[in-house]
Amino acid sequence: MEPVLARSVVLADDGVHILDRRNFPFERVWVRCTTVAEVAKAIEDMVTQSSGPYFAALWGMVLAAREARGLPRDEARASLERAGELLVATRRTNNALRKAVAAVLAGVDAAEDVEAGALAGARAGDERYRERSRRLGAFTAALLPDDGAVLTHCWADLYLTETVKAARGLGKRLRFVCTETRPYLQGARLTAETLGEMGVDTTLITDGMGAAVMSAGEVDVLLTAADRVTMDGHVVNKVGTLGLAVAAHAFDVPFLAMVQAPDRLAPTAGDVPIEHRPGEEVLHTLGRRTATDRARGRYPAFDVTPPRFVSTVVTDRGAYAPHELADYYAEDVHD
Amino acid sequence: MEPVLARSVVLADDGVHILDRRNFPFERVWVRCTTVAEVAKAIEDMVTQSSGPYFAALWGMVLAAREARGLPRDEARASLERAGELLVATRRTNNALRKAVAAVLAGVDAAEDVEAGALAGARAGDERYRERSRRLGAFTAALLPDDGAVLTHCWADLYLTETVKAARGLGKRLRFVCTETRPYLQGARLTAETLGEMGVDTTLITDGMGAAVMSAGEVDVLLTAADRVTMDGHVVNKVGTLGLAVAAHAFDVPFLAMVQAPDRLAPTAGDVPIEHRPGEEVLHTLGRRTATDRARGRYPAFDVTPPRFVSTVVTDRGAYAPHELADYYAEDVHD
Repeated sequence: MEPVLARSVVLADDGVHILDRRNFPFERVWVRCTTVAEVAKAIEDMVTQSSGPYFAALWGMVLAAREARGLPRDEARASLERAGELLVATRRTNNALRKAVAAVLAGVDAAEDVEAGALAGARAGDERYRERSRRLGAFTAALLPDDGAVLTHCWADLYLTETVKAARGLGKRLRFVCTETRPYLQGARLTAETLGEMGVDTTLITDGMGAAVMSAGEVDVLLTAADRVTMDGHVVNKVGTLGLAVAAHAFDVPFLAMVQAPDRLAPTAGDVPIEHRPGEEVLHTLGRRTATDRARGRYPAFDVTPPRFVSTVVTDRGAYAPHELADYYAEDVHD
Repeated sequence: MEPVLARSVVLADDGVHILDRRNFPFERVWVRCTTVAEVAKAIEDMVTQSSGPYFAALWGMVLAAREARGLPRDEARASLERAGELLVATRRTNNALRKAVAAVLAGVDAAEDVEAGALAGARAGDERYRERSRRLGAFTAALLPDDGAVLTHCWADLYLTETVKAARGLGKRLRFVCTETRPYLQGARLTAETLGEMGVDTTLITDGMGAAVMSAGEVDVLLTAADRVTMDGHVVNKVGTLGLAVAAHAFDVPFLAMVQAPDRLAPTAGDVPIEHRPGEEVLHTLGRRTATDRARGRYPAFDVTPPRFVSTVVTDRGAYAPHELADYYAEDVHD
């Protein structure tokens, strides 16, 4: 009963196949990318999002290695680095792209053959991400009520599916309330569909209803993923998270933010560039104009929730208060 | 330069014509209602909203008086009362319907001829509403910055257009940021269109972006209408207002709520029934399915903002702190 979105970027002989999330679940179209440039374009065009770009970058780097076939090792390595830069530039707030590129380059550096090394690195990155998500899901599930309602925003991808699996393993009975997450409707399409696939009782609300639902006592916890969490506890996630977190704080609903690890490269919020996407996207819904043409749109894709509105950051090493995130790395002996 | 929505319910010989706001501004269709029952149906079907139901109820009652033509006065009066109950039942959170019905019945009771009295009562109700909105707009405009950005939610109708006119009269330069206001998109369609018609610089955001915009310091004030304000300062308005108000409070943005008068029939929030509309409406956008069919929708149409998150309630008699609303009625010598 693995939901389709849990494995929606696939490497094949003829390229990387990416499930197009833009019109999912109404259509289930796979986009085939035959070059790393096409993968970068697909990421930029939002064919996939959330953890999708991470997996797309892993397998895109394998395509780059194939494209470099026959080149001297140094040139091949340099061309993979350029491919990595291209991928990282597509979504600047998404830290995972950098990690995917690094995983593949590490595989290349550890192997005699560039292409085989890239494939091994990508596979290791894929398995590592899934394993860390499983651990994160287990830690999260332990914090959820035995029988209760969870409000979530946007699409928390493997963090969500692993949490649901782990909660079920613990015998917990969870209902979910999902925000629709305009303009791309990830909540209405990806989250609600996937929770449904998994047999979870699911209610959809618009993005403006979260505070009403929380003030009415209808949810027990607010749970979202985070694209990044800074070392001082700022949660960077899909725009809309901040408003929900502030309302959760006002109405005594705990806010749990899930991230595999806090970001050592981001001591504080100023270190995280916030992606602004074309305002036109706000003026449309699934490709159809839904606003007057007398206004411009504005689309900050992410917002930053200060630590005072965050109850707990759940990682693959357990749960931390937002001011204790340095402890995550305390046991590390090296980078 | 009167915007079309400022006069969008019109009485004619052949019935009441109501501008259909559901697909405005993409289409400009007028719905003709020949009976009061058709007017009630149009209100229930959201053909019009905000102040629209008030005007529709006024003119709908005139249709009811026409339908009662030839009946003995007592029977005609009773039939108008039944018509009034029908109208009031369409949108239970909307206090204005009760007032519209009362205005027409007062006209009937003051006149010899039922039909002429109903018409006079409706005309008086129409003019009174517009005059009070003008005063409210003038008081509101005085509180706005001379040069700044106003965040608004949903569609504040005449309160908004009168505020914009009054601010312009004072030489103020205002920019507006509008939330789109799902599921009906009143912000994207009615507010942004009307502000555009009036030549105001207008930016549209999704309902989840308000907190991000406020935390970034991009707006100077949050300004919405209120469907009702209780005597102890609770603001009942389109769902989404609460979340914006809580965020405004967190980020030191003043929240001004506009209402002609606080509601003496509602001492506190428990006295205001909150309308729940069909959840299916959340699963669609302008008639098109935009969510998975694996989830149910939930649509509380209004939310309640407690007074601790309200800076000022602006009325047709001036501005009041939310705990001072009793002062609104202090100068009244009778009901």
